[in-house]
Amino acid sequence: MECKKCGRPAVYVDKRSGTALCEEHFREGLEDRVRKEIRSEGIGKDKRHIRIAMGISGGKDSLVMMDLLWRVEREYDVELIALTVDEGIEGGEYRRRRFDLIRRIAQERGIGWELRSFKQKYGFTLDEAVVALKGKEEPCSICGVLRRRALNDYARELGADYLAIAHNLDDEAETVLMNVIRGDSQALRRSENYAEELTAFYVPRIKPMRRVTEREAAFYAYLMGIPAEEEECPYARLSLRDEVRSFLDTLVRDHPAVRDSLVRLGDELKEKGKGLSRSRCASCGYPTSGGRKYCRVCEINFAVKGTLIGANQEG
Amino acid sequence: MECKKCGRPAVYVDKRSGTALCEEHFREGLEDRVRKEIRSEGIGKDKRHIRIAMGISGGKDSLVMMDLLWRVEREYDVELIALTVDEGIEGGEYRRRRFDLIRRIAQERGIGWELRSFKQKYGFTLDEAVVALKGKEEPCSICGVLRRRALNDYARELGADYLAIAHNLDDEAETVLMNVIRGDSQALRRSENYAEELTAFYVPRIKPMRRVTEREAAFYAYLMGIPAEEEECPYARLSLRDEVRSFLDTLVRDHPAVRDSLVRLGDELKEKGKGLSRSRCASCGYPTSGGRKYCRVCEINFAVKGTLIGANQEG
Repeated sequence: MECKKCGRPAVYVDKRSGTALCEEHFREGLEDRVRKEIRSEGIGKDKRHIRIAMGISGGKDSLVMMDLLWRVEREYDVELIALTVDEGIEGGEYRRRRFDLIRRIAQERGIGWELRSFKQKYGFTLDEAVVALKGKEEPCSICGVLRRRALNDYARELGADYLAIAHNLDDEAETVLMNVIRGDSQALRRSENYAEELTAFYVPRIKPMRRVTEREAAFYAYLMGIPAEEEECPYARLSLRDEVRSFLDTLVRDHPAVRDSLVRLGDELKEKGKGLSRSRCASCGYPTSGGRKYCRVCEINFAVKGTLIGANQEG
Repeated sequence: MECKKCGRPAVYVDKRSGTALCEEHFREGLEDRVRKEIRSEGIGKDKRHIRIAMGISGGKDSLVMMDLLWRVEREYDVELIALTVDEGIEGGEYRRRRFDLIRRIAQERGIGWELRSFKQKYGFTLDEAVVALKGKEEPCSICGVLRRRALNDYARELGADYLAIAHNLDDEAETVLMNVIRGDSQALRRSENYAEELTAFYVPRIKPMRRVTEREAAFYAYLMGIPAEEEECPYARLSLRDEVRSFLDTLVRDHPAVRDSLVRLGDELKEKGKGLSRSRCASCGYPTSGGRKYCRVCEINFAVKGTLIGANQEG
C-alpha cells in the first residue's frame, strides 16, 4: 500500500475510507484535526495569550493529546500545563506507574506538570470513599463525579482559560449512544458552551481529540513509543459503556462510519447556549441538576465523611 | 402469583415492573393504554364522527390492534375500516394465508375489510419490482416505500380521518435507535403532526399500540386465539433493525425499561409542527426530502417500468 498523499510506503490504513497514509501524513492528519477542533473553540483566533490545562491521567489518549496539543500550539500563543489528579487507588499500583511516563513526556516538551490528588482536595482517597459508600454508590460513579470537579477546580486555580480532556471519537460516540439508551434528552441537548453566568464555576472544557478515533490514538501512541497500559483499573466492571462499545464494534463492520455519524448527531442535537440548571447547591454553591438541594460532589463528600466520622466514633 | 389488582391467579407478569395481572386486568391495561394514546391524538375529545382506516397486514400486531381499537372505539363515535394492501409476494404463500384470518376477525366485529394491492396501485407486484430492480434497490426498501404510500392513498380514498398503524413499543424503540445510529437528526426531529399544508397529501397517522410491548401484543394475540405466523417474509434478511433488536434484548436484562426510555426520548426530540420538506416531486406532487426532483415512490415506479418496458422490447 502506498500513501495516498505522497506515494511512499503506507503505515496506516483508515478502515472507514480505505485511505492509506505514510507516517508523516498520518501525523499531519491528526494534527490537522486537533487544530481544527481547537480553532472551532476560538483558540488562536486572536493574539491573546491563552493557558490550557490538560487533564492527563497517563492513559494513552491523554499522552497523545499532550503531544498533539504541544505540536499544534506552537503556532499560537498558548501555554500548556499537564494536570494530573491522583484518585488514590492502591490496587496493583494502577495509574501510579504512569506518573514517570507523564513526567518524562511533559519534561521533554517543556510542559509543566501539576500533580494533585483526591486526598488533597476532599480529604479522602477514592479507595476510602469506595469502602465508606459500599452498597450505596458505584466506584466509577464516585470517581467520575469527584474527578470532574477536581480537574475543573485545579484548572481554575492554575489560571487556565480552558481545560482540555482527551476524549476521543469512540468515547464521544459511546457517550451519545449511552445518553440515548438512558433516554437522557437533557444530556443530549446540553452544550459545553456554558451560559455566561456559569463561567464563574466552570473552566470551559475542550476536547481536542474528539475527531481522532481510538485506533488512530493507539497507533499514534505506538509511534510515540508509549507502552500499552498493563493493568486495568481494579474497580472496572462490565458497564453500559462496555456493552455500547461492543455493539458499535459489531455495527461498524456494515456501517463503517457509525461512530462519526453518532458524534455528528450529538452535535446537531446540542442546543447552543443551553446551559446547566439554575438551581445551586446549598453547600458549595455550584449548579445542581434536577432541583437537588446538594450537588453530587457534596452528597458524596457528606456521605463519606459521615461514615468515616461514624466509624471513628464507633471504633 | 396473584393479580396485583384483584388477587385472582395471575396469567401475565410484566418483566419491567414485576407486576402480575389476571387476564381481565391484563386486557384492561392494554385497552387503557390504547385509549390514552388515541385520546392524546384528540380522538374522542369532541362528538365528531371519525373514520379510522387500520393498516392490517395480518401479522399479530395488526390483528391485536384491530381488536383493541374495536373495544375502545365503542366509547366514541368512531367507524373502523380494516385496510390490507397485498404486496404480491408469491414465495410460500406468505401473507395470503392470513387473509382468511383478517376476514374472520373483522367480520366477527362488524368491521368492513378493504383489500387492495400493489398491482392495482402501481401496475406491478413487489415480486416484479424486486426482479426489475435487482442489485439497485433492496426488497425491504422498495416494499416500505410503496406500502407506506399505498396505505396512505387508499386510506384517503376511503375518506379516513386517520390511518392507524400497528407499530408496538419495541418497533418504536428500535426506530429511534436506528435513526440515532444512522445519525439521522432530521428523522428524529420530524413529528407525525404534519404541518397544515401537508394534510392535502397525508392522512394523519396514529399508532394506538405504541405503548404496548411486543411481548404484551404476543400474549394478547395468544388470548385471542390468533395462530403464530408460520412463515417469514421470503425477502427478510439480516437488517440493521435485527442488530438493534438483539442489542436491546441484551441491554434489557440490566436496563428493563430501556425501550420505554428510547420511546420517551424519541418523543422529546420531536419538534412539534416540524413538517416534511417543502420541495415537491416533479411527477406526483408529493413532498420530497433532501431536494430530490422525484419522490422515492416515483423513482421506484419509473425504474421498474423502465426495466419492464426495456425487457419487453428486448424480448
